[in-house]
Amino acid sequence: MQHLKHFQGLAQVFFIRSPSSRLSKSVIPSLSVWDGHLSCRWRSTGGHGRQKYFNDRLPKFRFALAGLLAGTGAVLAYKLQQDKVQWAATSAQLRVTQTSDLPIYTLEEVTKHCSLDSGVWVTYKGAVYDITEFVAVHPGGDKILLAAGGALEPYWALYAVHQQDHVLEILSEYKIGVLDAESYKKQESANPLDPYSAEPTRHPALQINSLKPFNAEPPASILSDNYITPSVIFFKRNHLPVPRVDSEAYRLDIEGLPGGVVSLSLSELKSRFPKHTITATLQCAGNRRSEMNEVKQVKGLNWGIAAISNATWSGARLRDVLLFYGFGPEVAAKAKHVQFEGLDRDVTGTAYGASIPLNNAVSEEGDVLLAYEMNGEDLPPDHGYPVRVVVPGVVGARNVKWLGKIVVSDEESKSHWQQNDYKGFSPGTDWDTVDFKSAPAIQELPIQSAITHPAEGTSVDRSDREVTVKGYAWSGGGREVVRVDISVDGGKTWHVAKLRTSDQEQHPAPPPPPGRAWAWKLWEIDVPIPHRAQELEIVCKAVDSSYNMQPDTVAPIWNLRGVLSNAWHRVKV
Amino acid sequence: MQHLKHFQGLAQVFFIRSPSSRLSKSVIPSLSVWDGHLSCRWRSTGGHGRQKYFNDRLPKFRFALAGLLAGTGAVLAYKLQQDKVQWAATSAQLRVTQTSDLPIYTLEEVTKHCSLDSGVWVTYKGAVYDITEFVAVHPGGDKILLAAGGALEPYWALYAVHQQDHVLEILSEYKIGVLDAESYKKQESANPLDPYSAEPTRHPALQINSLKPFNAEPPASILSDNYITPSVIFFKRNHLPVPRVDSEAYRLDIEGLPGGVVSLSLSELKSRFPKHTITATLQCAGNRRSEMNEVKQVKGLNWGIAAISNATWSGARLRDVLLFYGFGPEVAAKAKHVQFEGLDRDVTGTAYGASIPLNNAVSEEGDVLLAYEMNGEDLPPDHGYPVRVVVPGVVGARNVKWLGKIVVSDEESKSHWQQNDYKGFSPGTDWDTVDFKSAPAIQELPIQSAITHPAEGTSVDRSDREVTVKGYAWSGGGREVVRVDISVDGGKTWHVAKLRTSDQEQHPAPPPPPGRAWAWKLWEIDVPIPHRAQELEIVCKAVDSSYNMQPDTVAPIWNLRGVLSNAWHRVKV
Repeated sequence: MQHLKHFQGLAQVFFIRSPSSRLSKSVIPSLSVWDGHLSCRWRSTGGHGRQKYFNDRLPKFRFALAGLLAGTGAVLAYKLQQDKVQWAATSAQLRVTQTSDLPIYTLEEVTKHCSLDSGVWVTYKGAVYDITEFVAVHPGGDKILLAAGGALEPYWALYAVHQQDHVLEILSEYKIGVLDAESYKKQESANPLDPYSAEPTRHPALQINSLKPFNAEPPASILSDNYITPSVIFFKRNHLPVPRVDSEAYRLDIEGLPGGVVSLSLSELKSRFPKHTITATLQCAGNRRSEMNEVKQVKGLNWGIAAISNATWSGARLRDVLLFYGFGPEVAAKAKHVQFEGLDRDVTGTAYGASIPLNNAVSEEGDVLLAYEMNGEDLPPDHGYPVRVVVPGVVGARNVKWLGKIVVSDEESKSHWQQNDYKGFSPGTDWDTVDFKSAPAIQELPIQSAITHPAEGTSVDRSDREVTVKGYAWSGGGREVVRVDISVDGGKTWHVAKLRTSDQEQHPAPPPPPGRAWAWKLWEIDVPIPHRAQELEIVCKAVDSSYNMQPDTVAPIWNLRGVLSNAWHRVKV
Repeated sequence: MQHLKHFQGLAQVFFIRSPSSRLSKSVIPSLSVWDGHLSCRWRSTGGHGRQKYFNDRLPKFRFALAGLLAGTGAVLAYKLQQDKVQWAATSAQLRVTQTSDLPIYTLEEVTKHCSLDSGVWVTYKGAVYDITEFVAVHPGGDKILLAAGGALEPYWALYAVHQQDHVLEILSEYKIGVLDAESYKKQESANPLDPYSAEPTRHPALQINSLKPFNAEPPASILSDNYITPSVIFFKRNHLPVPRVDSEAYRLDIEGLPGGVVSLSLSELKSRFPKHTITATLQCAGNRRSEMNEVKQVKGLNWGIAAISNATWSGARLRDVLLFYGFGPEVAAKAKHVQFEGLDRDVTGTAYGASIPLNNAVSEEGDVLLAYEMNGEDLPPDHGYPVRVVVPGVVGARNVKWLGKIVVSDEESKSHWQQNDYKGFSPGTDWDTVDFKSAPAIQELPIQSAITHPAEGTSVDRSDREVTVKGYAWSGGGREVVRVDISVDGGKTWHVAKLRTSDQEQHPAPPPPPGRAWAWKLWEIDVPIPHRAQELEIVCKAVDSSYNMQPDTVAPIWNLRGVLSNAWHRVKV
């Protein structure tokens, strides 16, 4: 059971949240199948049993792994890659090794064991498990009961964290039998329940950090080839399955304005408000997390340097929309935040959510968009079709995709991702001491830059005398990058790189108004190779218009979630 | 002449500027005495000769030391302290050693040599010098001609840079005689010309970096004793003599608005606009410059860690004033900057000047004040009596004191301090390669923190087991300090300090609205003393609400002007 202990440690990462109820009508009901499928299991807990069950038991499982189930992809994702191959092998053997002398059950018999009273049975790959005793120690908390009396596969498909060898080992301890052949066949064929089954096709160049939910970045080598990143290789950061949204049925609800709830169709959004276009870089809070992992392991997807991309976005200004529907000084006197809710939902029906400060949302200079186009075309499914929020200068996590609801409120979003994730802490803070309330939710991101060329470990021809170095630089809050310094001797001497602000070098973009530099700058420089150097340590650091600089090293900014990794980027060649 | 070479190197620091003409009527005419005094010298160059002379010769002296003459105090100030004693001795001997066998002149004879045509003679401590040949190599350029035909003392009094031994050595090479006793006596008694003669009395605790102009900071040990810094020890950063302004005659001119020039009295400013009070920290761009000097010498006053202070400021909002006098979308469509001009002027009549971006000046959230009170009282003379600009979150240099004029413009201030000073550069940029146009004028300052207690080199009693560490933290642009990390082992392990936002610990200030955190935070922490440690390297670093961090070390942010020194602060005890 050593694995369990390990798993429980991880479980303390996130606070469980109460599930929300409503599923938007405009989401094609691939997800609501769950309700039907689950009904048998909740029969025994009475009318509003499902909700009640959670509410009753929540206090006991305060530290349950809800964040994980809710799809942060935060836990052990970095370990997934190496575990996957072995896991597949173990998983395949599971039914075989258990057929020997164990009882055979029908699906009907299994279905009866769908509560703690009747015992909690589940199936996996045709084997039957009585996990009644495990429920109390399940790192994901009570949510395991959603699978009671049926197959684990559709649930595990939701969260890749289960695809680890030791999870199967734990499971095997509870095996009590196998399904009869007919039940197994029936179950196998009835496998429409993977909420990720409708995911869009992705570009083969993407380097995948997590398949479900889908998280991937382009190879660093091609990232800076385009000033405007093509949508297909723009980094993808999904927290949940991509919802399939019918644009005809789509409604955007707006709450918290004097006139009551507003419900807006896509065509109304497009026709009522001027179309505004900005070029803006989005960056994941976890970009360059892999460098923090080299200092000490953190929890989160192991992003390289390319969880950042740049695109043009067109849509209605959030400011225009809010003003149109009655936002004014009266509202401003009370409200402080604008919350966003996505149409992407987890197994409990909880939507992805985030919020931004009100003054950012309504500021003329904020340029916050309800975007329906990316790079001149409809938003791709992975980037929030049909409507997403683009909050330029602000961490990707607040740029809510598949936007379903806007709430003008005196409170921040209550979502897990706003309250208990995407915050920065001191290097001295660990999972035992962290108090998520003590740090502000990340909004504006700090100055960032990285080297996209040459790649770590490549060779440079000394006869060239010079080495060409390329990369990107960007800062949050609309602060323009004003300089990028490059060193090839580990930071002893520095050279100033040439900055680029468009795809055509001959036609640089006009300088942005002060405080509205939303787009990155690409940079390039030929640096003389020092005599006798055996190895070059190439370093870059950028400076923004507030003269913020990047910290020299990673360790002093290390934090348990591995966010805000913006130390000098170093490449040895 | 080795000194000259050294001096000429320094001379390349600043571009010469054309002098402005008008002297405000509201400035008590202690300065305009200059005009009378100078008239004899300019007689020989014809009607508009003075202006013409400058214009004709400017191209040749493109790199003249105008910035220095204009009072930046930038040059070699750090060397002044050690030179002063020796200089005084040399200076006293100057007349004595030259009386032996040199001719004796009357003041009348000297006065005739007041142009390059007639020869340029000057006097100093009763000796006469023919500096005609020196004019072309004078690091301060043509401005030396202002002294032609008369005494050097009033000019040298303006700029402390002349108080160096090698300056006297250079001068002695040009000696041609001495004044007759009567002339010397007459000159000595007619010494009302020191523009610094009317400077206010200062608090004895201040540590003086430069007397003329007056630049001083409080001892670090008392800086963090008060959340609101008492005005008398608030750091003083003057570029020029303190003008004595008659509040009854005071006028504030506003240009660039549709209705033409507005001229506003102090009582109109106070009565027409609501009085608005903010608590805001001001910081000199050169704060902590001394740490940069330890890496490699820079040009500028050798500030310690206390060129930063915090006060309450009351006055009219600049936004209210501009809107009242016609600022609107029409103006906003063309204008981009708001320029400020002080009533403090250099010997050529050039006023101190600076500008800020228009959107900052008119933003509701910008809180830019035309302040007439500091800490609840009239502004002290050193802090801009009767009216100064307070641009919270922005470098001290834009918070123009003794405000005489506001200009809404499409251009930045043309002043030396906006164009060719107060900008940041790469560590690889030196005075030979610097292009001041390549960098933006500093506005918002980056995240900053420093340790005020214990002091470098003090001892800690090991039996105490803990060491108490105190300091301040602040960031520009209204970004709130959200965390201060302290290490006592040079940055290996970190502890989070407790932050303080008022003078009464029991009554912390309410949290500022997002983006409007103008005031610093004081912090304190008791850190356990590591076993067996012989020396503690105490380090602090702060984080702001945009999660900007301070750079680890000074060398990579070193810049030739020694501004923006915000690396981790380190104290060894």
